[in-house]
Amino acid sequence: MEAARVGRPDTELAIEYDNQLGELMGLLVQKYGGSSVADVECMNRVARRVFDTQKEGHSVVVVVSAMGKTTDNLISLSRQVSAQPDDREMDMLLSTGEQISVAILAMALHGMGAKAISMTGPQAGISTDKFHTKAKILGIRPERIQSRLDEGFIVIVAGFQGLSPTEDIATLGRGGSDTTAVALAAALNADRCQIFTDVDGVYTADPRVVVQARKLDEVAYDEMLELASLGAKVLQSRAVEFAKKYGVELEVLSSFDRNPGTVVKEEVDTMEHIVVRGVAADKNQAKVTIHHVPDKPGVAASVFKDLAASNVNVDMIVQNVSEAGHTDMSFTTPSDELHRTRSAMEGLVDSVGAAGVNYDDDIAKISIVGVGMRSHSGVAHRMFDTLSRNNINIEMISTSEIKISVVIRREHADKAVQVLHEAFEMHLIQQ
Amino acid sequence: MEAARVGRPDTELAIEYDNQLGELMGLLVQKYGGSSVADVECMNRVARRVFDTQKEGHSVVVVVSAMGKTTDNLISLSRQVSAQPDDREMDMLLSTGEQISVAILAMALHGMGAKAISMTGPQAGISTDKFHTKAKILGIRPERIQSRLDEGFIVIVAGFQGLSPTEDIATLGRGGSDTTAVALAAALNADRCQIFTDVDGVYTADPRVVVQARKLDEVAYDEMLELASLGAKVLQSRAVEFAKKYGVELEVLSSFDRNPGTVVKEEVDTMEHIVVRGVAADKNQAKVTIHHVPDKPGVAASVFKDLAASNVNVDMIVQNVSEAGHTDMSFTTPSDELHRTRSAMEGLVDSVGAAGVNYDDDIAKISIVGVGMRSHSGVAHRMFDTLSRNNINIEMISTSEIKISVVIRREHADKAVQVLHEAFEMHLIQQ
Repeated sequence: MEAARVGRPDTELAIEYDNQLGELMGLLVQKYGGSSVADVECMNRVARRVFDTQKEGHSVVVVVSAMGKTTDNLISLSRQVSAQPDDREMDMLLSTGEQISVAILAMALHGMGAKAISMTGPQAGISTDKFHTKAKILGIRPERIQSRLDEGFIVIVAGFQGLSPTEDIATLGRGGSDTTAVALAAALNADRCQIFTDVDGVYTADPRVVVQARKLDEVAYDEMLELASLGAKVLQSRAVEFAKKYGVELEVLSSFDRNPGTVVKEEVDTMEHIVVRGVAADKNQAKVTIHHVPDKPGVAASVFKDLAASNVNVDMIVQNVSEAGHTDMSFTTPSDELHRTRSAMEGLVDSVGAAGVNYDDDIAKISIVGVGMRSHSGVAHRMFDTLSRNNINIEMISTSEIKISVVIRREHADKAVQVLHEAFEMHLIQQ
Repeated sequence: MEAARVGRPDTELAIEYDNQLGELMGLLVQKYGGSSVADVECMNRVARRVFDTQKEGHSVVVVVSAMGKTTDNLISLSRQVSAQPDDREMDMLLSTGEQISVAILAMALHGMGAKAISMTGPQAGISTDKFHTKAKILGIRPERIQSRLDEGFIVIVAGFQGLSPTEDIATLGRGGSDTTAVALAAALNADRCQIFTDVDGVYTADPRVVVQARKLDEVAYDEMLELASLGAKVLQSRAVEFAKKYGVELEVLSSFDRNPGTVVKEEVDTMEHIVVRGVAADKNQAKVTIHHVPDKPGVAASVFKDLAASNVNVDMIVQNVSEAGHTDMSFTTPSDELHRTRSAMEGLVDSVGAAGVNYDDDIAKISIVGVGMRSHSGVAHRMFDTLSRNNINIEMISTSEIKISVVIRREHADKAVQVLHEAFEMHLIQQ
């Protein structure tokens, strides 16, 4: 492990202290997702961990999701009485899943001798907008939670729900429990928001593909947002955006062991020492190419307006140089939306006067991410050169300030990730 | 069926009209218990009935219990994490059962094209005291329900729950959904509160014992209270007491057919025309006799104080005439509490200086009930004479203003009910 200390011998202790929160005695918001509260055994494991955290001297607010198959069972029940259940009633129904979880966790904690109290989203003071099944949190009045914390209680809050302006129960939609936890951490001025999942942190690459992949100790909000959008399903983008907006320090860690996880935080200067924080492959992409499109103003706008109207998500867009007044235009879209994309393209080819359209479902998008790219030059060159030396052809390129993505053949995806991981020495990263 | 009209040919039509609420166009509170909402099929049946009621021109508030085994499953889940779950958390947990029901019923109604909205107990404005798992309703602010009714909605309220003074969810304990319905009917000034069950009304006797038993069209609150305490499990006593207190007209009817049920209402003069409204047997009683108790002041007080301290429910008490300064004392208690009673009696026999104690689990309590007893004499005589002529020995007697109860051998219980039903011509009752 000595090699891992290269480049940061003098900061290591301080960071480990910070990462584990040592004897900080602060306020922690801990969120346990579905896989962490799958059954009663999991609930007891969570209860022990929460209680231990309090015993270490922290105040603890816990956010939990619904247990195991509860939500699926409730959805199936609703389908039996209605093909298209009303959104408000769906929220009334589904919110019971988290309510059951908070009560069970409180009971488990009581059984261990802990002081604990459960709260629904509305009881916890969480206000949302009126958009049932996909509501957004508008504000939190944390007084009730705070006064219980002051009395020494562990406060357990039902994730994924709040009270709408009409005093109805509203749910937050996908990833809602992560957002609940981050919003509570912001409102309570918590020292950290810990998101417990079934993985133990964010890695430099998928460990199943790259044996040398390292768990990152920390990552900047913007890096995490890029990685999340690349299919690293550790955190919902919305929760990360919320954390960034309110400066909430997030930690992703496993509920199945006691190791520190990955901290997602404000970018600090030292982060730029690492040029590339991670490399990710997204194999759920397809490439669509429209051939021989007339190269005149308004054509691109027309194409992508029609695609947006058909709810097709477009990711990368590339337009080649014009030849004799015509050009080829390519874009990528999620593979599982290819069917919808095909429907949307029908007619569109004729209407813009193109020669034809071609679909390629055999690609992968490989991306390298790092805030260090802003201050380091030659990153793109090194990426392209590495791929080239490994006989991997690049078909499309797209860049942002802190990310470079390329489209290649899907069969080369794992190889590309491995060689890039090595080229950028990500196995040496430990910060 | 012509015989049934004896004695009231001129009132029959009027009563039928009233009983079915004809075209009254009033506000109805309908309560559907666990067996009426056991599964999705039952829910759809309830939805059709509720919607039909609204189509007839009524405003409808519906109170529902938890579906099928939901409550049992939640209790079993809680036992897996805690041997003695906290009452507040138990309420948090169990209240989800009714919340699921209201959402599902609302969805089923929407599926039929009805305007419907569900509410939790707290949303419906139901306030309770702080005694979790056995809370009492303190008040109802019906504005939210009323405004939805005014907009033409069927309002579906979760039974069995309300909001405590500390803004926690509190459940009402046994029979709580009946009480919710009656309280809502009182607060909303409803024309009637209909309690749907798996029986179609209150009978003059158990139809499984007496073939000629008749369903009663109406019964006075006090009669229903006596019948409920006699083990006629149609309505919870607490709900009847509440109805009596606020003058809410109750109707007990079946959710599985469309026949009118039994109306429980304020006593009116004509009710006294019927001397005995019903006869009931309680076979879940045991007799305890303490022999040769010193006949001096304070002994009875001492015995029943100790029993009360041991949580033993005592029903009838009989003390025989004194012989040479000693007496025998008998009381009845529920059979399933006999074990607890035995424990309580240990030591007690010695401490009061009695000769011994004897337990008899082979008895039944037979009761006749009717407000007409107040104005009719000879009822007790006719009861005792009837039993005597049928060779049924009476071991204990207890009376109230509108009830006479006797203890007999359990083997004679069915026979006693049959002969009394005939002696008091209850097969002719139709009012």
